[in-house]
Amino acid sequence: MTAYVAVCGPDPASEDVAAQAEEVGRLLARAGAVLVCGGLGGAMEAACRGAAAEGGITVGILPGLDRGGANPYLTVSIPTGMGEMRNALVVRAADAVVAVAGEFGTLSEIALALKTGVPVVGLRTWELAKAGRAVDAFIRVESAEDAVREALRLAAAG
Amino acid sequence: MTAYVAVCGPDPASEDVAAQAEEVGRLLARAGAVLVCGGLGGAMEAACRGAAAEGGITVGILPGLDRGGANPYLTVSIPTGMGEMRNALVVRAADAVVAVAGEFGTLSEIALALKTGVPVVGLRTWELAKAGRAVDAFIRVESAEDAVREALRLAAAG
Amino acid sequence: MTAYVAVCGPDPASEDVAAQAEEVGRLLARAGAVLVCGGLGGAMEAACRGAAAEGGITVGILPGLDRGGANPYLTVSIPTGMGEMRNALVVRAADAVVAVAGEFGTLSEIALALKTGVPVVGLRTWELAKAGRAVDAFIRVESAEDAVREALRLAAAG
Amino acid sequence: MTAYVAVCGPDPASEDVAAQAEEVGRLLARAGAVLVCGGLGGAMEAACRGAAAEGGITVGILPGLDRGGANPYLTVSIPTGMGEMRNALVVRAADAVVAVAGEFGTLSEIALALKTGVPVVGLRTWELAKAGRAVDAFIRVESAEDAVREALRLAAAG
Repeated sequence: MTAYVAVCGPDPASEDVAAQAEEVGRLLARAGAVLVCGGLGGAMEAACRGAAAEGGITVGILPGLDRGGANPYLTVSIPTGMGEMRNALVVRAADAVVAVAGEFGTLSEIALALKTGVPVVGLRTWELAKAGRAVDAFIRVESAEDAVREALRLAAAG
Repeated sequence: MTAYVAVCGPDPASEDVAAQAEEVGRLLARAGAVLVCGGLGGAMEAACRGAAAEGGITVGILPGLDRGGANPYLTVSIPTGMGEMRNALVVRAADAVVAVAGEFGTLSEIALALKTGVPVVGLRTWELAKAGRAVDAFIRVESAEDAVREALRLAAAG
Repeated sequence: MTAYVAVCGPDPASEDVAAQAEEVGRLLARAGAVLVCGGLGGAMEAACRGAAAEGGITVGILPGLDRGGANPYLTVSIPTGMGEMRNALVVRAADAVVAVAGEFGTLSEIALALKTGVPVVGLRTWELAKAGRAVDAFIRVESAEDAVREALRLAAAG
Repeated sequence: MTAYVAVCGPDPASEDVAAQAEEVGRLLARAGAVLVCGGLGGAMEAACRGAAAEGGITVGILPGLDRGGANPYLTVSIPTGMGEMRNALVVRAADAVVAVAGEFGTLSEIALALKTGVPVVGLRTWELAKAGRAVDAFIRVESAEDAVREALRLAAAG
């Protein structure tokens, strides 16, 4: 079975974050996985650029009613007209989620994935706590290599 | 710009309808269009089979929470968990819709397309009327060739 | 159990259609049903005005991201930001649908209801056919009284 | 303008959390606000019970295709068939969100609200950080009274 892996992260993204997202995309494509994302710029675009450079398939699930704002590295773009509600579609289409840094949109994707049983791998992303105690709800890694290896392992186990 | 064309039709489908949907898929792929559909069997599967035979890209926007029921000719499958509400996503992702025969699901896609300005081409599909008078809201054709030619013309004009 | 009945129809609406929708709303409220609609003007507003005059509860499931465009007779308004995709939510929230006249939006609601097993009652609304033969998929009535009586009967049987 | 305030929290809920949610519901109803929630048990049910005891209006936006699982204190229930994707609808329908404790579903609602500019008030709920530093993205309060006062103030300012 082909693995579908979502890459979530900020738009815009810093150079560091973009480089890491691009490497995640490259490695996912080399492994034959389909990359799913929100279809826009920043970390999403960087991940798609990496995947496209390796001949991988990339899917962008867009917030708007048309393809405006879609990054140029998408094999398939899906306008939804659902705004941020489309984050739930990104998560549903994925067998595993890699969160690279990220803002509130990425946090919503992490939370929806955890709620619905889609495994999450975090790379320099949100840290969660309750009443002052860390809640370790997903795997944290330090490199794109580790992120992709863990995501593919979890996707296969799911 | 790549044209995205939705093919809507019944599941299951009669041999006649499946043959026509398959030919629509084949011609769309030869023209370089991306085929979008609801991802299941019947006319959807036939259209995807035709497109896949020509090396085309096919996208299935599935009603369920997982990829169960997806036909085997999809380049990309998108589980939505939205049930029949996903018909609106099929229409939104399309620059034009080809309706081949069809039941109430297809009728909902025709209606949503007409409501939101996505051009529709009908091949032996629903006929609409009010107070006993036909309402000619979309182009009707008699062959797969005509359906694809009209859909691509309308998609380019949109 | 409280019956939820959707009233679907055009916006804007002719005087005749509005009068009929208002009477449908009035009778639903008298029967203690909750009126669900798309929340905007025309037949939706008329139906809500009728229900509100009888102290009934009205729910508007709006297409936009905010409450702009909501008619003033809604007990509860629900902005969805989903555009015409929200038609599927109107149908899902209903135990039966009354279609009063209507354009393509109403047609999509009729089709989605028929596809998902929600009973439909039509008052001067769309007529369906295939290959020149009428498809009688829902009950047709001539008066608001008959529409409400049939809708409540079907909602209770559902 | 009537304020719509979403109350988000866990299902099931501890006695403490339920008591606090119930008090939030009571105070919202006394202030004339409409209470929006996910419609199920736990903190949602407690909040609705509190609001209903004061004659307030409560709206439950349900994950399932039918009204099964709805708590008995809902003025209006809206089945969506969208599963956890309906969390985005709960947030969209709200002028402000009160998060009481909560698990991943509540976290997704907090994140979607922050992403889309809906103000959030937190009562013993998730704490967020990045790279070891707290991210104070929403107001934290210690009592139901403070939660409701802040939510109504922010809803009016929105």
